[in-house]
Amino acid sequence: MDFRIEKDTMGEVRVPSEKYWGAQTERSRNNFKIGKPASMPKEIIEAFAYLKKAAAYTNCDLGVLPIEKRDAIAQVCDEILSGKLNDNFPLVIWQTGSGTQSNMNVNEVIANRAQVLSGKKIGKESFIKANDDVNKSQSSNDTFPTAMHIAAYKVIVETTIPGIEQLRDTLKSKSEEFINVVKIGRTHLMDATPLTLGQELSGYVSQLNHGLKALKNTLSHLSELALGGTAVGTGLNAPENYDVKVAEYISKFSGLPLKTAENKFEALAAHDAMVETHGALKQLAVSLNKIANDIRMMASGPRSGIGEIHIPENEPGSSIMPGKVNPTQCEALTMVCAQVMGNDVAITIGATQGHYELNVFKPLIAANFLESARLLGDACVSFNEHCAVGIEPNYARIKELVDNSLMLVTALNTKIGYYKAAEIAQTAHKNGTTLKEEAARLGYVSAEDFDEWVKPEDMV
Amino acid sequence: MDFRIEKDTMGEVRVPSEKYWGAQTERSRNNFKIGKPASMPKEIIEAFAYLKKAAAYTNCDLGVLPIEKRDAIAQVCDEILSGKLNDNFPLVIWQTGSGTQSNMNVNEVIANRAQVLSGKKIGKESFIKANDDVNKSQSSNDTFPTAMHIAAYKVIVETTIPGIEQLRDTLKSKSEEFINVVKIGRTHLMDATPLTLGQELSGYVSQLNHGLKALKNTLSHLSELALGGTAVGTGLNAPENYDVKVAEYISKFSGLPLKTAENKFEALAAHDAMVETHGALKQLAVSLNKIANDIRMMASGPRSGIGEIHIPENEPGSSIMPGKVNPTQCEALTMVCAQVMGNDVAITIGATQGHYELNVFKPLIAANFLESARLLGDACVSFNEHCAVGIEPNYARIKELVDNSLMLVTALNTKIGYYKAAEIAQTAHKNGTTLKEEAARLGYVSAEDFDEWVKPEDMV
Amino acid sequence: MDFRIEKDTMGEVRVPSEKYWGAQTERSRNNFKIGKPASMPKEIIEAFAYLKKAAAYTNCDLGVLPIEKRDAIAQVCDEILSGKLNDNFPLVIWQTGSGTQSNMNVNEVIANRAQVLSGKKIGKESFIKANDDVNKSQSSNDTFPTAMHIAAYKVIVETTIPGIEQLRDTLKSKSEEFINVVKIGRTHLMDATPLTLGQELSGYVSQLNHGLKALKNTLSHLSELALGGTAVGTGLNAPENYDVKVAEYISKFSGLPLKTAENKFEALAAHDAMVETHGALKQLAVSLNKIANDIRMMASGPRSGIGEIHIPENEPGSSIMPGKVNPTQCEALTMVCAQVMGNDVAITIGATQGHYELNVFKPLIAANFLESARLLGDACVSFNEHCAVGIEPNYARIKELVDNSLMLVTALNTKIGYYKAAEIAQTAHKNGTTLKEEAARLGYVSAEDFDEWVKPEDMV
Amino acid sequence: MDFRIEKDTMGEVRVPSEKYWGAQTERSRNNFKIGKPASMPKEIIEAFAYLKKAAAYTNCDLGVLPIEKRDAIAQVCDEILSGKLNDNFPLVIWQTGSGTQSNMNVNEVIANRAQVLSGKKIGKESFIKANDDVNKSQSSNDTFPTAMHIAAYKVIVETTIPGIEQLRDTLKSKSEEFINVVKIGRTHLMDATPLTLGQELSGYVSQLNHGLKALKNTLSHLSELALGGTAVGTGLNAPENYDVKVAEYISKFSGLPLKTAENKFEALAAHDAMVETHGALKQLAVSLNKIANDIRMMASGPRSGIGEIHIPENEPGSSIMPGKVNPTQCEALTMVCAQVMGNDVAITIGATQGHYELNVFKPLIAANFLESARLLGDACVSFNEHCAVGIEPNYARIKELVDNSLMLVTALNTKIGYYKAAEIAQTAHKNGTTLKEEAARLGYVSAEDFDEWVKPEDMV
Repeated sequence: MDFRIEKDTMGEVRVPSEKYWGAQTERSRNNFKIGKPASMPKEIIEAFAYLKKAAAYTNCDLGVLPIEKRDAIAQVCDEILSGKLNDNFPLVIWQTGSGTQSNMNVNEVIANRAQVLSGKKIGKESFIKANDDVNKSQSSNDTFPTAMHIAAYKVIVETTIPGIEQLRDTLKSKSEEFINVVKIGRTHLMDATPLTLGQELSGYVSQLNHGLKALKNTLSHLSELALGGTAVGTGLNAPENYDVKVAEYISKFSGLPLKTAENKFEALAAHDAMVETHGALKQLAVSLNKIANDIRMMASGPRSGIGEIHIPENEPGSSIMPGKVNPTQCEALTMVCAQVMGNDVAITIGATQGHYELNVFKPLIAANFLESARLLGDACVSFNEHCAVGIEPNYARIKELVDNSLMLVTALNTKIGYYKAAEIAQTAHKNGTTLKEEAARLGYVSAEDFDEWVKPEDMV
Repeated sequence: MDFRIEKDTMGEVRVPSEKYWGAQTERSRNNFKIGKPASMPKEIIEAFAYLKKAAAYTNCDLGVLPIEKRDAIAQVCDEILSGKLNDNFPLVIWQTGSGTQSNMNVNEVIANRAQVLSGKKIGKESFIKANDDVNKSQSSNDTFPTAMHIAAYKVIVETTIPGIEQLRDTLKSKSEEFINVVKIGRTHLMDATPLTLGQELSGYVSQLNHGLKALKNTLSHLSELALGGTAVGTGLNAPENYDVKVAEYISKFSGLPLKTAENKFEALAAHDAMVETHGALKQLAVSLNKIANDIRMMASGPRSGIGEIHIPENEPGSSIMPGKVNPTQCEALTMVCAQVMGNDVAITIGATQGHYELNVFKPLIAANFLESARLLGDACVSFNEHCAVGIEPNYARIKELVDNSLMLVTALNTKIGYYKAAEIAQTAHKNGTTLKEEAARLGYVSAEDFDEWVKPEDMV
Repeated sequence: MDFRIEKDTMGEVRVPSEKYWGAQTERSRNNFKIGKPASMPKEIIEAFAYLKKAAAYTNCDLGVLPIEKRDAIAQVCDEILSGKLNDNFPLVIWQTGSGTQSNMNVNEVIANRAQVLSGKKIGKESFIKANDDVNKSQSSNDTFPTAMHIAAYKVIVETTIPGIEQLRDTLKSKSEEFINVVKIGRTHLMDATPLTLGQELSGYVSQLNHGLKALKNTLSHLSELALGGTAVGTGLNAPENYDVKVAEYISKFSGLPLKTAENKFEALAAHDAMVETHGALKQLAVSLNKIANDIRMMASGPRSGIGEIHIPENEPGSSIMPGKVNPTQCEALTMVCAQVMGNDVAITIGATQGHYELNVFKPLIAANFLESARLLGDACVSFNEHCAVGIEPNYARIKELVDNSLMLVTALNTKIGYYKAAEIAQTAHKNGTTLKEEAARLGYVSAEDFDEWVKPEDMV
Repeated sequence: MDFRIEKDTMGEVRVPSEKYWGAQTERSRNNFKIGKPASMPKEIIEAFAYLKKAAAYTNCDLGVLPIEKRDAIAQVCDEILSGKLNDNFPLVIWQTGSGTQSNMNVNEVIANRAQVLSGKKIGKESFIKANDDVNKSQSSNDTFPTAMHIAAYKVIVETTIPGIEQLRDTLKSKSEEFINVVKIGRTHLMDATPLTLGQELSGYVSQLNHGLKALKNTLSHLSELALGGTAVGTGLNAPENYDVKVAEYISKFSGLPLKTAENKFEALAAHDAMVETHGALKQLAVSLNKIANDIRMMASGPRSGIGEIHIPENEPGSSIMPGKVNPTQCEALTMVCAQVMGNDVAITIGATQGHYELNVFKPLIAANFLESARLLGDACVSFNEHCAVGIEPNYARIKELVDNSLMLVTALNTKIGYYKAAEIAQTAHKNGTTLKEEAARLGYVSAEDFDEWVKPEDMV
């Protein structure tokens, strides 16, 4: 393997010659061999590309960076966004908690790649300097949290929300389709009074609507960018008005409605916005877990379960039991939900432990957040396409169960009172008979009145 | 001990004669000896009193309950609200997950107490019936979640928000007071560029403002009441328009802006609203933990710590070390924050496991939520009164630390570049000298320029 | 209300005259009005009584406390253990994180009560001094963690383990009783090959046995006492050999096999032993949740659920649905499990944040631990007595379900291969027929062979 | 792209021709596009290779598989272990919760690769059948949990324990080296009585020793293998004694002391062993978080922090502040600890929700467990090599702080009592003077006695 020598303020470092990164990236790569290589989320690198380009434009507008440096930086940023330089970001999540070396990784790659694009050799006196040009008016302390918010906002609006909405729409249309399918209700897992399948599904739709609203409520906080705070929030070494302008450029380049944070001290030292939005993701995980769980219980069987609905059969379900089909999409979705709940605790703990002017659990928080947001979005699409769209009632089974139910007796409360109604139900349960038989036998309700008063379809 | 005989649909039960509760309460009391007695939160009982009174008024308005029964029920509800019947609610959190017996406890106490108030003996043919009158148009399945929302909303707006706002106001006024007190910044716990103490505190204010906004965003969902859904959400056995009217009465009696839930199926089967609001409480716990932690670190010492601020000395700090004083309010507050984070997981898990038409982790969710909301509110008041209001800068110490700092060198970046500035800082660090000495010795900056360029007060 | 004046190193304080506590308790009572009053667990106070008595005996043996002071202290400790002084411990969990004022509360009550028992008035020159006598050779920093371990160990061996073992024994005997009851197995909630009800229950027994073993494995760490470490772990101001002797006295008085910690620095600064034991409680909560959940699913119905077992009917299950009976013990137990899982996070967070020589989340950790340990023990007893002991198979239903199952086809894998077996099952599923019919129709297995090869009772 | 047609019991599927996987893998790949591709941990695939080879040997020994099939299967397993077939395992964590398709992925790759190795073309009548040969005497339900335990055990004993032990050894040797370096103690972050740096580090060593012991205590449960339970734990379709023999082969091939599970019903339906071992990982995370946090606080500065120790300077610490060096290894390690704590909740939730005969959160549990185990091991090695080995006391700073401390007054308690000692400390604190001056001025202790009684080195 070929190497070249790179330098930083601590001295010289050997770097693989075919890579664009520099001394600091290489130090971090060697000092943090923890877990899988290159685990820093790609979304963060992409967000940095928007950010560095926006910074170059802002610096240029404010007169502190020449236009040719701006354009050189912007050109490499566009290459990063195109995925062309993907192999140049080898760092891991488990590095310094400020993400400093990931910021430097981007700075170094931009500087070295610009050097090459300008026709010169890396290592010669650089055309663009990683710290003084690419990182101008910036600090890791304000760039990394800015990249976190850009990346987080982007995945939420491009993946999470559309995925959940897609599932919500399917459930809504199924809810309308089955609005008259009367079935047994269940509380405490025990037979209860009837409702319709459509009503049941409408509860799920309402959960997701509330969850989506909660998620959208958090976006205002998440849209705040730290950039311009520089080292500790004061904006030292950044030109006046830099923060507002750079946020505008980031919005323009990324297409996201982002804005500068009103208080930069919070924006560096705390990650409450990430906590807030991830709290909404956790809420949605709670909802989705309930929905997926209900669906697999209702689809259970085929002969010894509840069996009230059919869901699509997608894979042979067992390597040993021939013909078995399982609610695999429910399982994938509930596993994702459990992961999101675990990630919420990791984020909470990381966010809790900021000290003074900086929270140093940034990569942890970013990685867990982005995983949750992407998994929820993807899992909803998968669950929707391979399960929800195919939900169909098992009409015969639904009718059989509702007709047999003892809880239809509740309709008699207002006619004969709770105590006599209870006696009818208990006697039928003990004797294995029908409510109607026992109602008549006990002399509380005539057969005609029973038929008149106890109609499942009137009880929903 | 004296007993009387009470009956329910399962048969006879002996109940202590001096208590108003009936057969079902007694069964639950005997069947669930788990943890401390009478652990069901008093806020839930109080909420039930509002609810039962509102139900009686609504039933009366809608023609299904005579006015004298309404008034008898309302009278007992007022007694419950006054605290007069506190000894009549002996049940625990760890009962049926629907809270059915706590609903029945209230029904039974109201029925029996009304009997006594009407001058008759309990046990004789009752004037008011627990199920048929007090519980009319209701089910445990819609009353308990309604009581949860009433109680939760009340403690949030009456205790949590005011407590946090009180602390926020103090921090805001301190932030303004100390806006010109230049001090060293710290990132990674290491010396960084300066900021003012007021700026530092402004970050805390911003965190709390964002948290309060997040909390208030959740109140719309929390204001939705399940009442009117009865057994499974369909509203069986409740008169038309009952749900809207009863919510209006509850609002009127409690003084809270509550409304009927649009979708009753969600309101029984899920507790996403509790998850949502508690998520905001958890976010505030994250913020408060950061704030309290910073304050205790800044106050640490008196001689071997950071010592930049003074906080009130409230108690002798040690039973063995004479003269010791500790940041005890910070400790109480951070313990509360840890509890809220733990409660968030308990609530998440409980809310995750609803089945079909009912979530049966209701008392768990309610108890954890109410504890968090009360503890956060109380702890903020305590922290505010006994710590925050007394925060004072240790001016001499602050000045000493900022004057010695090597990170003032950052001001030179824009003059001589990052690399030379680093060399100055590293040399001063190695030699234990000042930046100014080394800047001159290395020949990068003259003493005059140094004094001109490196002014902490210009760096904030 | 009457008051007397008490003094500490910070000055004078008014204390209610009928109480034994002194100045520091009163300060803490006024400075920490957070949550319910007197929330510090009673088990901690009781543990302090063992500890203070043991310290007095040890100090006396080692020649630093006169025998009459030892006996006076011991006498009050015995009163505390008898519950007689319960009203004298008004402090809350949410105080200083070292529990200093709870230690002083005990010191003050002992000193003042001893004064009264000696026939003198409180407030006159004390016979016994709270700091110099009762707290001799101690610090809050080593007494509070010692009290935590005493209390924790005690509740684990006296409540948690016996409660779980009681349930385990019932499940074991039921497992043996039903070892030949062949029923359908279910994987993914879907019908699978058969097993016996006894086998199913044996899995629960194995879970609890593994959990009990895991719990017992942690007791060695929990048995280590911090006492003797005094302020920071060095044992300053404690006589030589004090730590070993005092642990022996604590063991003797409490009847628990406790010992002095090998490393006192850990014992003050960390609470890993509490984390370790609570980790085992959480594991048991996971197991119990699985068990309770299975039982309620198997008992679900009576007509529209699984209905394979009967469990005792303990309370009317619904205030609106007459005759309804619910798996309320399962619900209480799973709520307890969720609480334990939440408490585990609170303890983890508290234990994570020790600083230097002291962890100051002690009361939080103690309170959550003791709650979990007691709830698990109590809930297992409750679940055992009111549910597990009454589990009975619904033989008819079990037979019906197993006979209809399509997964019996798995027995044919070794005869005709997985693919043909699958075809039989799929065809029977599609046509609503039996496996035997389709096996014959497809020509893969003769009716005789089928009866010979496919016997549920041979498949378990 | 080229494709070939593969078949399973559901019909035909197009598979990329250059891959060895078959129809079921392809179905899963298309049906579960959730998160990153191929996220199923490689350790699971490797564990499956041991398992399939062991199963082939056992089946052959027991007379149900011909020797040439055994050898063909074993040959491919060895190829998998060598990493040669890595590109053939494209499935994700977020699939069916039993991991069925990952089991089938291995079965299919082995069958198809064996076909190729035997010189024939894939898709022709197979020499080795995925279900009937490779999966013989197995089910996904017992193979996947077996692979989980193999993989988990392996990473624990090969990565986690050695990594932690390496750090423990360094801390132990540092503890011995600095056993006489007297420094100020700190409790509540406030100055306390002195101890030595070596004593402080000994607490960390004790924490890690206790944690390692706790971890090793769990290995017995983790060593139990489900294999032989087949579909639901009964062992249907597996030959007698198969479970014991196959565990022996797995032990032999993997070099790990594994054994067959006594109760197979637990082994499929619950993952308490994973919960148990991960609980110990979480405990170690708690310990390591405390240790890393202390070290960064002690190393804080260089001029405005605590500054009692030096740690290695590994990277330039800031992209904006020249010369800054940060405790980056502490940050990486504490981020890992937060991740482990989050993973613990994900695993807890997943393990809680087993239903009947199968827990279907297997891939989630496996992935989180393996991540935690690897991260902890790697992070300890990284922290050890790049931080712990380089810890050096800052002797001058340590001496300065201990000499100034007011808490040395504690040594006077036994001479003049707690109250007078407190008065001395408080006066010195107020006046900014020394204890000695005030002791003399107040007339409580002569200068000679003071020097005699108050010696930091005698207080440790």
